Amino acid sequence: MNAPVHPFDAAIALQRTAQGDYLGHTTPAYRNMVGPFGGITAAVLLNAVMQHPQRLGDPTAMTLNYAGPVPDGPFRIVAKPVRTNRSSQHWVLEQWVLENGQDTIATTATVMTAARKATWSGSDIPAPATGGPDAGVKPLVVTGFTPWLEQYAIVPITGAIPSDWNDAIGESSLSQLWVRKTMPRPLDFCGLVAACDVFYPRIWLKRARQVPAGTVSMTVYFHANQSQLDATGDGYLLAQANGQEYRDNYADQSGQLWSHNGQVLATTHQLAYFKE
Amino acid sequence: MNAPVHPFDAAIALQRTAQGDYLGHTTPAYRNMVGPFGGITAAVLLNAVMQHPQRLGDPTAMTLNYAGPVPDGPFRIVAKPVRTNRSSQHWVLEQWVLENGQDTIATTATVMTAARKATWSGSDIPAPATGGPDAGVKPLVVTGFTPWLEQYAIVPITGAIPSDWNDAIGESSLSQLWVRKTMPRPLDFCGLVAACDVFYPRIWLKRARQVPAGTVSMTVYFHANQSQLDATGDGYLLAQANGQEYRDNYADQSGQLWSHNGQVLATTHQLAYFKE
Repeated sequence: MNAPVHPFDAAIALQRTAQGDYLGHTTPAYRNMVGPFGGITAAVLLNAVMQHPQRLGDPTAMTLNYAGPVPDGPFRIVAKPVRTNRSSQHWVLEQWVLENGQDTIATTATVMTAARKATWSGSDIPAPATGGPDAGVKPLVVTGFTPWLEQYAIVPITGAIPSDWNDAIGESSLSQLWVRKTMPRPLDFCGLVAACDVFYPRIWLKRARQVPAGTVSMTVYFHANQSQLDATGDGYLLAQANGQEYRDNYADQSGQLWSHNGQVLATTHQLAYFKE
Repeated sequence: MNAPVHPFDAAIALQRTAQGDYLGHTTPAYRNMVGPFGGITAAVLLNAVMQHPQRLGDPTAMTLNYAGPVPDGPFRIVAKPVRTNRSSQHWVLEQWVLENGQDTIATTATVMTAARKATWSGSDIPAPATGGPDAGVKPLVVTGFTPWLEQYAIVPITGAIPSDWNDAIGESSLSQLWVRKTMPRPLDFCGLVAACDVFYPRIWLKRARQVPAGTVSMTVYFHANQSQLDATGDGYLLAQANGQEYRDNYADQSGQLWSHNGQVLATTHQLAYFKE
């Protein structure tokens, strides 16, 4: 008997067509309130690049634009290497879905990959001192809220989702949490990009009010190399996000992800729509 | 006699072709060490969206990928609205140049525009208290370094470009400066996106070492609405950038731009290549 496929791998599975496009399918495990979790959409689009026979190097930057809903069912990804340099490559991606019987673009993305060399390294974002996730604290698996959240085991440090929606405007919108997959899975670039979207909307924390909100654009800069991914394995990531500006239906956040041992794995930013 | 065209407007001028593409031309005023200033490339690509007859609303998010060199001379921009919703629109852009006689993609970009409504507003990034640019300080117009820099009048607050390249690793890579156009020009979305690239590479400040470095990807989230742009006029912007992680040829920064009176106009992030 074969080992069961991990739900994350099932969700990012792709089949290459004769034309060189990639066919995928949404899965119930990664469903969000409307359509799939944005992080899994990021992961499956990145996976098309990872599987592409023309890929040069590892992911360095990725931007996703969540342009429209992804209905439950099949989708098609077009991933084109539009420019290949000696040590870097630029990709343009589209995710196509059927909407009212019409072939429609649901997501656009750009990806940069690069053959990176070891260089001088440094950091201006040391990991916050949090005491670590292993101090006997049982992680939280949030059930009954939105399906994809059950795929992650979370140890909140600060800025957990409000339990009292009392409209009290907060001084800060900082969230810090330890996070790993509920079912262990070694970290790879697809897992890392998905984890960058693990935060709930900053405006819920800022306003203690659950207004309709959703990510419209996300950018991830990849700092991890393969040996750092390997060292992280299926262990916890320390994830931090902070809102910046909220105005006229849109708000942005800045985020960072560190490995268990304090290495920066990725930095991420996103713009979210909010109503009212 | 007509008033002379502002150098910025000359640099972002476009001619629409019968096919709906846009033709532009590099200008000496915005030349950088190699090719044009990344901010002017951002501005001219955004200008294609601004001039496009199908545009819905104002710029909300933009990501640029500087995929290859833009040689001195003409270029062509293809700007496609790939998805139009009720109040938002998603664009994919390419900048094509002639390289060794071959039509080649030099830059890719995505833009989101939206018809935004006035909503609850808030901020988690108050403007740093700097005392303002008007305390009798004469702005600096840096000449002889790289041409485009002469287009901006700068009042450094902290983190000015090192005068002593002594390889002393810094504790921080924060730069704050007041900046406006040398020749006054009222702020618009194109001017705002250009200003987001006004910072020199963070790694120069971090390492006090002028290694080869250049932006490969930049994202801008637009928070300013038209009335805030109008209120800013041709006045100073307060610009701040801070490096995050430096590793294996790439480093990223997070930045913010405020108006003279402390309103957040844009937030911005970028990934830069560096050598060694």
